[in-house]
Amino acid sequence: MNQRLFFTIVGASLLLAGYAHYFTDNEFFKFATASLAIIFLAAWLGKSTESVAHYAGDRVGGFLNATFGNAAELIIAFFLVKEGLFDMVKASITGAIIGNMLLVLGLSVFLGGLKYKEQTFNGRLAGHNASLMMLAIAALFIPAVFMKELPPVEIGTLSTVIAVILIVAYLLWLIFSMVTHRDFLSDIESHDSEAAWSKGVSILMLAISTFFVAVVSEWLVHSVQHVSETLGWSELFVGAFVIAIIGNAAEHSAALLLAMKGRIGAAVEIAVGSSLQIALFVAPTLVLVSLLLGRPMDIVFTTFELAAIGVATFITISITKDGATNWFEGVLLLAVYIILGTAFFFA
Amino acid sequence: MNQRLFFTIVGASLLLAGYAHYFTDNEFFKFATASLAIIFLAAWLGKSTESVAHYAGDRVGGFLNATFGNAAELIIAFFLVKEGLFDMVKASITGAIIGNMLLVLGLSVFLGGLKYKEQTFNGRLAGHNASLMMLAIAALFIPAVFMKELPPVEIGTLSTVIAVILIVAYLLWLIFSMVTHRDFLSDIESHDSEAAWSKGVSILMLAISTFFVAVVSEWLVHSVQHVSETLGWSELFVGAFVIAIIGNAAEHSAALLLAMKGRIGAAVEIAVGSSLQIALFVAPTLVLVSLLLGRPMDIVFTTFELAAIGVATFITISITKDGATNWFEGVLLLAVYIILGTAFFFA
Amino acid sequence: MNQRLFFTIVGASLLLAGYAHYFTDNEFFKFATASLAIIFLAAWLGKSTESVAHYAGDRVGGFLNATFGNAAELIIAFFLVKEGLFDMVKASITGAIIGNMLLVLGLSVFLGGLKYKEQTFNGRLAGHNASLMMLAIAALFIPAVFMKELPPVEIGTLSTVIAVILIVAYLLWLIFSMVTHRDFLSDIESHDSEAAWSKGVSILMLAISTFFVAVVSEWLVHSVQHVSETLGWSELFVGAFVIAIIGNAAEHSAALLLAMKGRIGAAVEIAVGSSLQIALFVAPTLVLVSLLLGRPMDIVFTTFELAAIGVATFITISITKDGATNWFEGVLLLAVYIILGTAFFFA
Repeated sequence: MNQRLFFTIVGASLLLAGYAHYFTDNEFFKFATASLAIIFLAAWLGKSTESVAHYAGDRVGGFLNATFGNAAELIIAFFLVKEGLFDMVKASITGAIIGNMLLVLGLSVFLGGLKYKEQTFNGRLAGHNASLMMLAIAALFIPAVFMKELPPVEIGTLSTVIAVILIVAYLLWLIFSMVTHRDFLSDIESHDSEAAWSKGVSILMLAISTFFVAVVSEWLVHSVQHVSETLGWSELFVGAFVIAIIGNAAEHSAALLLAMKGRIGAAVEIAVGSSLQIALFVAPTLVLVSLLLGRPMDIVFTTFELAAIGVATFITISITKDGATNWFEGVLLLAVYIILGTAFFFA
Repeated sequence: MNQRLFFTIVGASLLLAGYAHYFTDNEFFKFATASLAIIFLAAWLGKSTESVAHYAGDRVGGFLNATFGNAAELIIAFFLVKEGLFDMVKASITGAIIGNMLLVLGLSVFLGGLKYKEQTFNGRLAGHNASLMMLAIAALFIPAVFMKELPPVEIGTLSTVIAVILIVAYLLWLIFSMVTHRDFLSDIESHDSEAAWSKGVSILMLAISTFFVAVVSEWLVHSVQHVSETLGWSELFVGAFVIAIIGNAAEHSAALLLAMKGRIGAAVEIAVGSSLQIALFVAPTLVLVSLLLGRPMDIVFTTFELAAIGVATFITISITKDGATNWFEGVLLLAVYIILGTAFFFA
Repeated sequence: MNQRLFFTIVGASLLLAGYAHYFTDNEFFKFATASLAIIFLAAWLGKSTESVAHYAGDRVGGFLNATFGNAAELIIAFFLVKEGLFDMVKASITGAIIGNMLLVLGLSVFLGGLKYKEQTFNGRLAGHNASLMMLAIAALFIPAVFMKELPPVEIGTLSTVIAVILIVAYLLWLIFSMVTHRDFLSDIESHDSEAAWSKGVSILMLAISTFFVAVVSEWLVHSVQHVSETLGWSELFVGAFVIAIIGNAAEHSAALLLAMKGRIGAAVEIAVGSSLQIALFVAPTLVLVSLLLGRPMDIVFTTFELAAIGVATFITISITKDGATNWFEGVLLLAVYIILGTAFFFA
């Protein structure tokens, strides 16, 4: 997209959200404008991260991309944690994981599959991602199984231990994929960072876009509570389907565009990679951040959330493991997403 | 089998069942004769469906075969729904799924494996079937997890939504496998429909056999209640092991014969395909039919049933995914079937 | 290791444990010395079994190795059953299964992976082992799901039936892998039994080492109860992490040494094979033995134990199924082990 046009849209959406926040009382209007602004700001933030990553060189850049690719998601969740909306935080983590694996991957595979009879990619990477997802599932299921009868203090300790283990495992995965076994996963070079701007401008852009995402996220978190109360929607549904879709919109469109150009491997990498990042990095980081904020959040997810993550993971593994996709596999992913959406709506 | 002999047996079993139903009072005798008649009538119905399918041309024919391959099962379940025996309906769905995956496939793999050291088939189809089974499992698990605390009205709505999604997914699967990706799964041409009779006779045969299956199913449903009460067997055990085996007997023998001729791929297709058909088409159809009958049945299965379906699916996927079988893999499937049978008997 | 040195160490550790048992009152000292002695005695017992197996010829020898490879584990568990410490028995079975799959395999894959960029092995065997693990999981999950509401008598009957089925399946697996499909799994010739001594000496060694393992196991079982009470550790934690590690130490070191020599296939076989042996042979044998002892133990594991076994199995299958390993996959296994260890400690 033309840069001037892009920044015009970003600026306009930001102004509109600011106007709604400061000068109107309609919570629905505030929510709608903040959501819209977040979507464009997240795209700007993503672009800035990639540009800075480009100048940082291959390894550090890859690390930046991999770690802050979900920065908007992380910032929104930070404000939810600060407000003590732990149920919504966990629901939004759940929603981001299943949204990436079922909705984004499902649409990518389906739409790509309408154009290409079969699309193939590096099945080995899919196998590795499957093992990482198993770690994430283990880390989320074990506390839920064991903690039912534990006193709160021990739940806190166990949550912290698990969070640290997950972050360490995630950092080791970055070392594995970027240092020791770089070539191993080599045909997925799709996530190349591009320099949109000069070095100095890139850093400035990163700072400014992060700042605005943070500001508007706080607005969004305030208005979403009113909106969900008025509509009678549960924290679970709002977190898992509304917040999660808004926070990930930029990545969603990127994956879809790649899939329709025949680059399904890149789309799989974005969708599954993003899910992994959220489960192994964003979720444990939020647990540790909540400690610093003096409002400790545990890592115990509800049975509904675990069932959703479990189901989504197993069908995604089943579909990606052969390194080939077709339109019907997209239908399967989307069918599970719709079933889960309906169930969360009623729950 | 010689046609004259076949129809003599069908007719004799039908007469015997009719005699028992109208002129005797012994419920065990009624049950035994109705069961025997259903087994032969189901074989006749299957033969008629294949013959009609032959004249309908490749695509429509394949569709007919795939959709009405479990017609006898569907008709028996229809009368169970009509009687409000929902627990037995769900148990018979469970039993048909695990019976096909564990008993039929297990015996086929075991007996075929005694003759051939290793039998191979299209592993790609196995992968696709695995993904479809994951959808079925997701569709059955999600309501069970989410519905525990829901009011009945919402359970009804959610059941209907899920039923519609499953049927749509099943129809899209038929389009995928018969229209857009026909060649994709091509080495499984085993399920060719053959014309047993001329076009007109085939249609007549289909109508008559369906009529008789319906009549005898109603007799069976009546007597099975008395028999299970007298023996002290639970609806769960009767549905999952007695009804399910009777309703699927015709397919069972077909799969076994193919496996022993070295055509294990065809046997796998019948066994796994039949399970998929029941989970993705028969079960949701019964939910929708129950609405029309004014006696709405939900799609919530018991923990026992879900555990059985889950365990059966995972071990079947594990065994079929490499596209090769040997006798010991048959032993594994049969061992799980016996364990489940024992557990259902005591439950 | 030099034989003289080996027996000097074995003898010294045995004398020390005996001294502690008969002449001191410090339970911690008794526990520490008995544990140390068991570790060396188990190594001696393993060596004797292999040596006898060598003279028994390929088939019977393989059978001996496969069946009594976990003899020390079995003997310790026997004394736990005799004392009625059923919770600790089941915890130690759980611990041996997850310890082999996560700790032993994890360390082997990790340390081997630091030296070799990628290590490969027979993926086909991994697939077969996966199917066997699914049977074990099915056999352990089904009773836990079904037995919650059953009366004790029926739990006993069902446990016995399942135990018999598992042992039969295990014996058939030995026939499969050693008689009918010997060549099938052929590149794993690593487990060759070697003759350490002459035939007569081997048998004598086997008898003596078994005797001493039994004696010291009884000491260990007594002291472990005092130690765990004093430290406030649960039977669950002691069984799953203390007893299990002591009982399997000899195998652990063997697997590690093989992995560091680049023979990861042999290490996988020891680790996964040992888990299978415990799930399919040791556990059901203990159930049957408990009947003979007149203190029937059922086969119902706790939710914690089943969750641990389930998680360990799925991640192990995910990592071994491609027949290749690297250091990061070792990290994944170890991360899950540490998470489980922490959870069991708090539980």
